[in-house]
Amino acid sequence: MQRRSPGHRMRREIMQQPEAVAATLAAETDKIRELAAVLRQRNPRYVMLVARGTSDNAAMYARYAFSIIAAKHTAVTATSLLTVYDVDLDFSDTLVVGISQSGESAGTLEFLQQARERGALTVAVTNTSRAPLTRVAEFSLCTRAREEESVPATKTYTTALVVLHQLASLWAGDIQRASRVQDVPGWIAQVLKSEGEIQARAERYRYMRSCAVMGRGYSLGTCLETALKLAQCAYVSPAAYSGADFLHGPIASIEHGYPCFVFAPEGKALQSMSETLTALHEREAETVVVSNSRAMLDRATVGFRIPDMPEELAPMASIVVGQLFSLHLALVRGINPDEPRGVSKITVTL
Amino acid sequence: MQRRSPGHRMRREIMQQPEAVAATLAAETDKIRELAAVLRQRNPRYVMLVARGTSDNAAMYARYAFSIIAAKHTAVTATSLLTVYDVDLDFSDTLVVGISQSGESAGTLEFLQQARERGALTVAVTNTSRAPLTRVAEFSLCTRAREEESVPATKTYTTALVVLHQLASLWAGDIQRASRVQDVPGWIAQVLKSEGEIQARAERYRYMRSCAVMGRGYSLGTCLETALKLAQCAYVSPAAYSGADFLHGPIASIEHGYPCFVFAPEGKALQSMSETLTALHEREAETVVVSNSRAMLDRATVGFRIPDMPEELAPMASIVVGQLFSLHLALVRGINPDEPRGVSKITVTL
Repeated sequence: MQRRSPGHRMRREIMQQPEAVAATLAAETDKIRELAAVLRQRNPRYVMLVARGTSDNAAMYARYAFSIIAAKHTAVTATSLLTVYDVDLDFSDTLVVGISQSGESAGTLEFLQQARERGALTVAVTNTSRAPLTRVAEFSLCTRAREEESVPATKTYTTALVVLHQLASLWAGDIQRASRVQDVPGWIAQVLKSEGEIQARAERYRYMRSCAVMGRGYSLGTCLETALKLAQCAYVSPAAYSGADFLHGPIASIEHGYPCFVFAPEGKALQSMSETLTALHEREAETVVVSNSRAMLDRATVGFRIPDMPEELAPMASIVVGQLFSLHLALVRGINPDEPRGVSKITVTL
Repeated sequence: MQRRSPGHRMRREIMQQPEAVAATLAAETDKIRELAAVLRQRNPRYVMLVARGTSDNAAMYARYAFSIIAAKHTAVTATSLLTVYDVDLDFSDTLVVGISQSGESAGTLEFLQQARERGALTVAVTNTSRAPLTRVAEFSLCTRAREEESVPATKTYTTALVVLHQLASLWAGDIQRASRVQDVPGWIAQVLKSEGEIQARAERYRYMRSCAVMGRGYSLGTCLETALKLAQCAYVSPAAYSGADFLHGPIASIEHGYPCFVFAPEGKALQSMSETLTALHEREAETVVVSNSRAMLDRATVGFRIPDMPEELAPMASIVVGQLFSLHLALVRGINPDEPRGVSKITVTL
């Protein structure tokens, strides 16, 4: 059967997330507050996020956080516009946030450098102080997750979400909102307690070759990051969809028993995700639901409960389900999740 | 064996694309030129595209066209920001382009309406004049593809690409660039001549349950749209990736013989896609390459050649390979591509 395998670095790093988030909040909140004051003063109109891999999925979360909380137009941009197509874009009035745990991702680095030269207010979010990206950016924020050794990123993802949420909240001057993240370590700890249940359930998917993963709004990044973890750790081929887009075509491909992972926390996007779940059940799909809505969990083939928490913070807990599930699916398949074949920790693609 | 099935509406509409593009250029170029003059005068700084399904993939193409050709920051936005999260966003200085063949897509309609009330310059791109979306928008452009009866969209996609490319080129005042699309009908006609070859090759994938689809830059939309067609018509579960992001994790999931579709026309993104192809071959993947690069085609398990054409126009020809392949894969599986189970032509999701 499965091994709990305390020796895997990925598992250790998943378990470190409550303390990593708490350490980040303790050490970085003042710096985030100072940067938020700069943002309120210089008042950029547009936010552009640039990142790759797991950090790109953190950027997708931040797209919603900056759009909704700070009411700023926010886009996850493509590095290729500058690194491949050499476009002469005007970056005045624009905040560019580069996210890279190592601070060495080549495309992100080059994009941030060029954007700054063209007038952007630039911010680096890294897990390594004094990384190349922090030297290129005007301002830097550092997640305090300590070194991440496992190739699949986990604790640098959740800590980045926390930093990005705080920056959006404090930019909006919403101190109460920013303070709510103080509860995130406790919420993550609660999810970690369900590891045994997640491990037991993962076995059922031993022979799953592909699947669909869905989320919407704040949870779209969770959906993309879970898909990435499933691909990277457990060698599954997951198609990730916005729950709304999914109904516009891809639903046709769902057959009896096809595994669909649905992220649907309580909140404004729940109604839409509930309709998606109904459509999946009409197609007799197998549904794995991560939610804090009793009604959603009751309708799932397999349900994983997250604590009751605001919709905008739920991604910080629900991704931990995705991480633990991917880890244990890798282990039940005899794959070492720490060393995905053909993937290195630092990426050099422009 | 396979039926050519001239009776399928989807096939008929794929075949109509040269004339649909030519008709659109003949009837709409003056109106596009007038709108481009308005854009040069009012000079919005930001472009936001809003759409769903196939139109969303046309928006992804336009993201690159407006960014690169018109040098404007361009984002494909999420309708949910206004329709689910009720964000009070400022749309001054912003062009919002809503794309919907029917002009009735509910989320797109509501987003465009709200954006206009908040100061956006709004443009509708539809295939139906006097559709609801055209009444909501300040300006309207109409593709002249005539009625599209098949649920999977084909000719409304290529004609939308042509309109969007022209608008970007004429906004940039680049008349010569805009005139290059006059050759698109001929290029599409050349691809249509390879139907027999595509049909013969599709049989090999009779039992393909899932696959990966890759492209970058201008071809990212082609990759997403091919994935949608494969899901919608042939009930495949395709994971779509930017060729660059793919190397940051998902590559680990590729096993011997796993089918990967690669869109890699000659141009600035080719080098990066060539590296992706190398990585796929190291993993012994089966590669289906759509390209006009002899070097890329020579390295493919199965290659489909498109004509020599500028990189920015190649998506208008290479998607036709994706359409024909999806059609014939559906037929070889005994699926009626005109009526995907559970999908209707007009979508109502907010």
